Amino acid sequence: MQRTRLDAMECPMARTLDRVGDWWSLLILRDAFHGLSRFDQFQKSLGVAPNILSRRLKSLVDDGLLQRRRYSQRPPRDDYVLTAAGRDFFPIIAALVAFGSRHFAPEGPAVQLADAATGQILDPVLTDARTGRAIALDRVAMVPGPAAGPEITDRIALIAALKDMKP
Amino acid sequence: MQRTRLDAMECPMARTLDRVGDWWSLLILRDAFHGLSRFDQFQKSLGVAPNILSRRLKSLVDDGLLQRRRYSQRPPRDDYVLTAAGRDFFPIIAALVAFGSRHFAPEGPAVQLADAATGQILDPVLTDARTGRAIALDRVAMVPGPAAGPEITDRIALIAALKDMKP
Repeated sequence: MQRTRLDAMECPMARTLDRVGDWWSLLILRDAFHGLSRFDQFQKSLGVAPNILSRRLKSLVDDGLLQRRRYSQRPPRDDYVLTAAGRDFFPIIAALVAFGSRHFAPEGPAVQLADAATGQILDPVLTDARTGRAIALDRVAMVPGPAAGPEITDRIALIAALKDMKP
Repeated sequence: MQRTRLDAMECPMARTLDRVGDWWSLLILRDAFHGLSRFDQFQKSLGVAPNILSRRLKSLVDDGLLQRRRYSQRPPRDDYVLTAAGRDFFPIIAALVAFGSRHFAPEGPAVQLADAATGQILDPVLTDARTGRAIALDRVAMVPGPAAGPEITDRIALIAALKDMKP
């Protein structure tokens, strides 16, 4: 029921969650960023049941984040590598890692992002590509885009109405 | 089972998913960023069952992302506002929105982030706070942090072993 509901949503966040919002998909993507690509590698790394792993890999392929690659002709064997879209998912993983390290690791960070060449620890922050300034919640608004349909405009109106609503 | 497993993980991404990785929590945070704070506002906005909403709000309070605020003395009524940690979650929401707009919206973006003062559309990109350079997957490594325990070092060894493993 929840799935159907988000499926139909215009909201790009809801669409992203709908496609990759389950833990297994995110953990598969994380492992793919670490360089794993074969079914048996993902299975050993995640300790996930084969039928669940098959289903999640197929979804990630269908959604364009992974692609099958024939790595052996005899016997015929495919593995799963990140597409350009899949690689573009990396900032979300990095942001989740950074957040977890800051707020859910009272003992200090257990893993960190580092520059692969220099080893310098990275401090990920979301900035605007045009101005280079950090995107701060206080200075940001969500506005309808060119493809906003009734769902988004209705939702913006609903949010405005709810904010005006007396308790 | 899955929950218990992630709970115990040192991986900061897994911890974040464990706390806020269900859709309702993320949608509640999204609405909180939009300025909603009261139970009835979240309920109307999300169309979620009251018992589920109660449980998710309590979790978000327990995990330090929202805090209860007494907005009415008579009758006593609390609403839910973002804490500093909750506000720090915004980049993850923004990254999910940006990704969904780029890859799951063939008709073009339905919502966009804009500078609240100027109306200028923002193009969110993850950069390193120190150098200001975009964090690109190709130039990034995950390294053990100061608080890395056996789980993380074992995992790094496992990933290395799996990558070396013959198909």
